[in-house]
Amino acid sequence: MEKENETKAEQVVNPWEVSAKGTGKIDYDKLIDQFGCQRLDKSFVDRVFRLTSRTPHIFLRRNVFFAHRDFNEILDAYERGEKFYLYTGRGPSSEALHLGHLVPFMFTKYLQEAFKVPLVIQLTDDEKCMWKNLTVEESKRLARENAKDIIACGFDISRTFIFSDFDYVGGAFYENMVKVAKCVTYNKVVGIFGFTGEDHIGKISFPPVQAVPSFPSSFPHLFSGKDKLRCLIPCAIDQDPYFRMTRDVAPRLGYNKPALIESLFFPALQGETGKMSASDANSAIYVTDSQKDIKYKVNKYAFSGGQDSVENHRKYGANLEVDIPFKYLSFFLDDDEELEHIRKEYGSGRMLTGEVKKRLIDVLTEIVERHRAARAAVTDEMVDAFMAVRPLPNMFN
Amino acid sequence: MEKENETKAEQVVNPWEVSAKGTGKIDYDKLIDQFGCQRLDKSFVDRVFRLTSRTPHIFLRRNVFFAHRDFNEILDAYERGEKFYLYTGRGPSSEALHLGHLVPFMFTKYLQEAFKVPLVIQLTDDEKCMWKNLTVEESKRLARENAKDIIACGFDISRTFIFSDFDYVGGAFYENMVKVAKCVTYNKVVGIFGFTGEDHIGKISFPPVQAVPSFPSSFPHLFSGKDKLRCLIPCAIDQDPYFRMTRDVAPRLGYNKPALIESLFFPALQGETGKMSASDANSAIYVTDSQKDIKYKVNKYAFSGGQDSVENHRKYGANLEVDIPFKYLSFFLDDDEELEHIRKEYGSGRMLTGEVKKRLIDVLTEIVERHRAARAAVTDEMVDAFMAVRPLPNMFN
Repeated sequence: MEKENETKAEQVVNPWEVSAKGTGKIDYDKLIDQFGCQRLDKSFVDRVFRLTSRTPHIFLRRNVFFAHRDFNEILDAYERGEKFYLYTGRGPSSEALHLGHLVPFMFTKYLQEAFKVPLVIQLTDDEKCMWKNLTVEESKRLARENAKDIIACGFDISRTFIFSDFDYVGGAFYENMVKVAKCVTYNKVVGIFGFTGEDHIGKISFPPVQAVPSFPSSFPHLFSGKDKLRCLIPCAIDQDPYFRMTRDVAPRLGYNKPALIESLFFPALQGETGKMSASDANSAIYVTDSQKDIKYKVNKYAFSGGQDSVENHRKYGANLEVDIPFKYLSFFLDDDEELEHIRKEYGSGRMLTGEVKKRLIDVLTEIVERHRAARAAVTDEMVDAFMAVRPLPNMFN
Repeated sequence: MEKENETKAEQVVNPWEVSAKGTGKIDYDKLIDQFGCQRLDKSFVDRVFRLTSRTPHIFLRRNVFFAHRDFNEILDAYERGEKFYLYTGRGPSSEALHLGHLVPFMFTKYLQEAFKVPLVIQLTDDEKCMWKNLTVEESKRLARENAKDIIACGFDISRTFIFSDFDYVGGAFYENMVKVAKCVTYNKVVGIFGFTGEDHIGKISFPPVQAVPSFPSSFPHLFSGKDKLRCLIPCAIDQDPYFRMTRDVAPRLGYNKPALIESLFFPALQGETGKMSASDANSAIYVTDSQKDIKYKVNKYAFSGGQDSVENHRKYGANLEVDIPFKYLSFFLDDDEELEHIRKEYGSGRMLTGEVKKRLIDVLTEIVERHRAARAAVTDEMVDAFMAVRPLPNMFN
């Protein structure tokens, strides 16, 4: 019973735990080796640019999405004129999302627009009910609340199907769950996910639920007769274990392996020690934060790579490797030239942390304000419309 | 990790294996102790007679249903004027049913008629797909074929809902699956069912599927707002492990523990060594057998407790403990006086095996012919009607 997480315990990255010994900083190169995925190099950015005739998304240019599995095959197929579909999701464990939660959705929205492809978004309310010990009712409520934030990212309703597991599991989707479950032993899931004998069987039952949206036949109202349609999954790299399992099973069920494009973790304000903690409101900027909250959090908590005195700062410059304001700007400041300017000026010590934080506060405030306005415009009817089980006749046009 | 089946390996009885060391004969008294259920004694038969004002079913009079859990509470509640519902099921692994398969359905039909209560029948096509390695499509087809045999037993469509898991899992049913799965650890299912690490996770995921029809909220179209409705499960005793697990979980989810009324195994023609083998057509009488088949099988294969010569037989009489023709008659010959007559005459050696077999052939032929005629009258429309997700407004009248 080989347990990947034990033999490589220097850093643990799975859907429920992200931690690293020592500095607490994740070594992403090591992670790529450990997981067996590929680095997403500059050639992909150029190719996406060429294929879509639009500037690649900031998360692609800045290597926030830094790893992949078979993304090249998706692009090959696209170049041949074949379509694919996107699949991403969220575990609805909290009311308010933080910026890290938005990263995959912002990027997926770009992919949908750039490639003109359909998208399925899974809300794993069943998972959160089991892992976070929420009631079924509370999990379902949070799924709907989170759906509003997701819709606010600007998805195209004519190409997007959002579903909650508690609502949608059944029929063809359940058939695929059973087919996947038949192909995976208990020892295998222990190896991939690190379950123990004292874990409840709900946890052991769950991986097929997250696996099967990778197969077009799980959505007969969308992809009937298109069993060979490829699936591309944008997600944070902690979700990789699910899809390693899925890719292992896919050919045995007659499906293509889903392709992946995987992001770094969005760092906590206090520094890059993995994912943010939902239980510490001061570790992240939430989409519900006011301008004042943002200013306060960035100024008080955002870990600075600047030196301890202005004199030293001018002399040595900021350590951009650990500087959170600069990291955050590299996620969200779209202007490549301005970021490059900040890199040079701040890195050399000519720019001070206060100035960089001020710029960051402006950038984050704008994003959060825009999100808040968009979310306020999302009605219950719109949620119903996105979540309706319906055909999407123009999803590939 | 206590494994019930290992520590008590003298006989193994679980939903997938029935075997006993030595003679191969199941010791039902030991099984009752081992499982922790109760013996169903004569007082229950009398009480059912009193409460329903009709002769108790042959399977009750002959102690074919020999064990129970909380059947007394069901009768107490019924006596107070409270209703309950029945739940039984079948794993559709074969095309043609044998007489042993019909035992729970014949008895459930009687219970439904006698107590005037609703009934849900689960066809576990998902289970058989996983255990018997059938395709999803073949499992679903067999479920529908088996539904015809079940309907042919005479269930009242105004009180009966038949469902296949592949069709019905979802919604409130899936919510209950998740709730049950949260309450049961892997070690627990290993203890109850004897799974190993090399078993696929579909097996580990399945017990909640068979558990949740015990809870009224799994059927919102039938029992909405009736969360405290009691459930009585007629089944063969090999299904007890599922419901031991279910009864353990029920109070934690706010439900009554389901009550059980449990039968012996219907013996193979070759002798009482547990359940019949679906892979040996000569071990059982099938509902598709012709009169000629029945005559041939009974005469050739039915294990006789008679002596090896007429002389010895007249002297010592038949050993009714092992005699299959007599066992079968005790399941199916409704006339108590005639059975008593045969017991005396055959047991004392005045009656010969040939005569008893002849009587059995007549009895079985009549049952099988009646079933065949009833099944031939079951149309696809009737299957659809029984399986439609619909309210049953008069189910308690």
